[in-house]
Amino acid sequence: MKYCSQCGSTVDLQVPAGDNMPRHVCSRCGEIHYINPKVVVGCVPQWRDQVLLCRRAIEPRYGLWTLPAGFLERDETTIEGAARETLEEACARVAIKDLYALYNLPHINQVYVMFLAELAAPEFSPGPESLDVRLCREDEIPWEQIAFPVVEQTLRDYFEDRRRGRFQVRTGDIRRLPGQGRAFEVRLLGQ
Amino acid sequence: MKYCSQCGSTVDLQVPAGDNMPRHVCSRCGEIHYINPKVVVGCVPQWRDQVLLCRRAIEPRYGLWTLPAGFLERDETTIEGAARETLEEACARVAIKDLYALYNLPHINQVYVMFLAELAAPEFSPGPESLDVRLCREDEIPWEQIAFPVVEQTLRDYFEDRRRGRFQVRTGDIRRLPGQGRAFEVRLLGQ
Repeated sequence: MKYCSQCGSTVDLQVPAGDNMPRHVCSRCGEIHYINPKVVVGCVPQWRDQVLLCRRAIEPRYGLWTLPAGFLERDETTIEGAARETLEEACARVAIKDLYALYNLPHINQVYVMFLAELAAPEFSPGPESLDVRLCREDEIPWEQIAFPVVEQTLRDYFEDRRRGRFQVRTGDIRRLPGQGRAFEVRLLGQ
Repeated sequence: MKYCSQCGSTVDLQVPAGDNMPRHVCSRCGEIHYINPKVVVGCVPQWRDQVLLCRRAIEPRYGLWTLPAGFLERDETTIEGAARETLEEACARVAIKDLYALYNLPHINQVYVMFLAELAAPEFSPGPESLDVRLCREDEIPWEQIAFPVVEQTLRDYFEDRRRGRFQVRTGDIRRLPGQGRAFEVRLLGQ
């Protein structure tokens, strides 16, 4: 951030009175600009013993598989956002049933909120951001081609919970480990 | 938003290619500026049969009581943020135990994430944003002087769950009803 979005003047990094962190503060109008983490909302859309996966038609992770998810918009709830993303990416209508997971991704300043959902009918097709959309049983999940660690973790949680017959809300942190590869650490709260 | 925070030129509201909502787009550099809801993180700090409440020394709702909570910062997790807010507002150290509630407040573009927490010791004092900090049993909660509906709802959930001996993650929406008074509707997911 270099300029004030309210008056167009330059901003400086300084700690405002009563604050304890440096913020972007306008040199002319004094407006304080906060930069906050973003919420990503999505769901596990279920149909009988299958879940709906989308193959990404956009970067990052073009061509890999994911659960429907995307940035929460203004004026909507996380519940509405998760259903909207499923409609946009998979042209599928879902009923959002329960909160399922909240994962922190502090290295990219995102908070993922995932719900359990049920497809109203086995009707779906790729939206503009998807190359393909498929219903997969557990043994059909393309584990080696999952786009994001938070999606892989949510799917592993889901099938583990389904085997034991009880769904439990999960929360924790997923951090990228230092180094050049794509290595991540998953730490669940309370473990 | 009137000016581009990257180059200082004016922004226009337009629907970018591949998008379906109007965004603030820079007239010179083309940067798209998204405005997203913010995450508020907090906790129910427990000590035996009491919970820790703070009396607000800042607007909005100056002088009313609340649970420790505030905006999630960059580079931190919701778990870290909830503990930090408790330290800042109540000078109290807590261990965050479990996710407890996720409430959507779409009328003010906030998502509240509340945790169950335990005080390390009954040691606390007002931080700069608090007039007073107190441990309250259920019959000592100042129900008529609670600052925010989401805090009242979380406290009611908490004491209800404690009576039945089982804590259950809650999620739902809290919306301000049209009109001049402070009337709110609480709708839990699945009810």
